[in-house]
Amino acid sequence: MNADSNVTGAALAAIAHMPTASLPVLMDDGFARRLSDADLMRIAVLLAQKSLDEGGCPIGAVIIDNDTRRIVGKGHNTLVQENHPYNHGETSAMRDAGRLDFGRTTLFTSLSPCQVCATLLYMRGVSRVVVGDVTNASGTETLLREKGVGVEILEDPRGIELYARFRAGNPELDLEDWKGVSASRQQ
Amino acid sequence: MNADSNVTGAALAAIAHMPTASLPVLMDDGFARRLSDADLMRIAVLLAQKSLDEGGCPIGAVIIDNDTRRIVGKGHNTLVQENHPYNHGETSAMRDAGRLDFGRTTLFTSLSPCQVCATLLYMRGVSRVVVGDVTNASGTETLLREKGVGVEILEDPRGIELYARFRAGNPELDLEDWKGVSASRQQ
Repeated sequence: MNADSNVTGAALAAIAHMPTASLPVLMDDGFARRLSDADLMRIAVLLAQKSLDEGGCPIGAVIIDNDTRRIVGKGHNTLVQENHPYNHGETSAMRDAGRLDFGRTTLFTSLSPCQVCATLLYMRGVSRVVVGDVTNASGTETLLREKGVGVEILEDPRGIELYARFRAGNPELDLEDWKGVSASRQQ
Repeated sequence: MNADSNVTGAALAAIAHMPTASLPVLMDDGFARRLSDADLMRIAVLLAQKSLDEGGCPIGAVIIDNDTRRIVGKGHNTLVQENHPYNHGETSAMRDAGRLDFGRTTLFTSLSPCQVCATLLYMRGVSRVVVGDVTNASGTETLLREKGVGVEILEDPRGIELYARFRAGNPELDLEDWKGVSASRQQ
């Protein structure tokens, strides 16, 4: 896809599913520059949908370089898929990005960060965090701002609807994903 | 190894290197019960040594079940080895343990937890954290106690010497491991 291509839903889905290192095969730098913040949030939501399709929690995240707007990392929650007790969208995308200078990046997350991810985001110096859903949020947006991270809310209605349906149908999984088995057993 | 075996340094090294799921092949439940807190801290330090031998940061962690004292997870830092921007001893051991009720476990770490790991430890309800080295620590022991986690300091002189030597020889790697590339570039 190049700068003349339309940014269609199918194009965003292909970007969500393609391994990050292979993205240059799919799209050139001009196309990357055309992706709006709303497009990048939609990619995070499409990663959330991918996780749900795998039987997991529907939360995704995308990291871009602030200057080139190239996608440098992306991923989704893998609590169920990998029996992984803390891999959220943000940790998954940062692990995909590797040892970057996160001070030059923006992270888009389909759901408000938990306390662990918020701490990781400011400790690694992420410059900006864009949040797609603050329903039932734990208030980490305030913590991030206090620590000097730019925070924007950019609601994605499809992502909000996706997570609301998951939360309503899977309250124990939602709680375990946030606070672990220990909390869900105390319910 | 059974309850009559001596808990030698060689035995602890074998435990450190054996995959967690395979430990029952190496040691029976009676032997697990004979491992003292100091032995378990030594295993965490032997995992730190394994990481250093691989070219990585020497920090390790071990998680046991409080009732059986079986080892349920262990690991070490993989910043260098896996190009992993946040995998510390604690995250590595918890990822190895999987979706457990961490409220029934104790985590032994060779080095004082960073803010991210401390947040993860209390969010997942870990009941007790034993710390082997609080030199230059960031004070997360106080945070953990405030959040209801039991904290003990059990210094391991070999672990303290191992990390002090690493920190002196690799100050940039020590800083990156704690606060990311962003912080080490600002030095």
